[in-house]
Amino acid sequence: MESLDLFLETTLQLAKSAVAKGNHPFGAVLVHEGQIVATAENTVVTDCDFTGHAEMNLIRIAFKELPREKLESSILYSSTEPCAMCSGAIYWAGIGSVIFGCSNKTLSAIVSGSLEIPCPEIFRHGKKAIKVVGPLNESRSKKIHEEFWSRNG
Amino acid sequence: MESLDLFLETTLQLAKSAVAKGNHPFGAVLVHEGQIVATAENTVVTDCDFTGHAEMNLIRIAFKELPREKLESSILYSSTEPCAMCSGAIYWAGIGSVIFGCSNKTLSAIVSGSLEIPCPEIFRHGKKAIKVVGPLNESRSKKIHEEFWSRNG
Repeated sequence: MESLDLFLETTLQLAKSAVAKGNHPFGAVLVHEGQIVATAENTVVTDCDFTGHAEMNLIRIAFKELPREKLESSILYSSTEPCAMCSGAIYWAGIGSVIFGCSNKTLSAIVSGSLEIPCPEIFRHGKKAIKVVGPLNESRSKKIHEEFWSRNG
Repeated sequence: MESLDLFLETTLQLAKSAVAKGNHPFGAVLVHEGQIVATAENTVVTDCDFTGHAEMNLIRIAFKELPREKLESSILYSSTEPCAMCSGAIYWAGIGSVIFGCSNKTLSAIVSGSLEIPCPEIFRHGKKAIKVVGPLNESRSKKIHEEFWSRNG
């Protein structure tokens, strides 16, 4: 399996792990120089915290453990495109690149109440560039959302 | 002092309190039926957490302590317009209204590296309306930023 596929697959496994614990199907990993340096999953339900998105949890871990220059040269992989909240956090953390599976647009067609805004739309208001690649292999993450939200929407 | 002025003044006192502890000059309060039900200040430095904005900390407290319907009928007062991250969190928390002192645009003219996006620009991508009022009494919060960021920018 190519590294990119492996990292995206890891985000999907984390999304499934989140669901198994009673949370929402989202996972994220931070990759630096080809190695996973942090992983996180959604904890909104179990932490009783609306800010417990996978990317937010990842950034909280990463900011404590990695120096600023490592964050800048890291790639955040997410099972689903970061929302406005997570995109803002990615900007403040200074993470240099984002790669995601399912787009916000696709998610919004599945879940009611979504905040449908592409993450590049947030980043373009900042003063430093963040590279974004996605959606990638969207069918896999889309399927997880369809299965979950049809039961929990 | 009118209630609105009192609530905004409280956010400024919280912003000053944050600075006294080594953090950034931001404060926020949540008001329900004319009463302050939660207060929070920026904790980015002391918590070593880029997501420790005043509004984020407020939402984490409020979501644990208040039922959803109270959040919907609450007003979040902030010393400065919520950034993209905090606006996303406000949306997910279902808070109904936002009133702020200093605008993001004014802040961005003072601090380098800001993410200059008006919060209504985030909210308009959502599926429920959030009422926004601001900037209000901007000179007071602007002064706090000018004093702080000239020393710490």
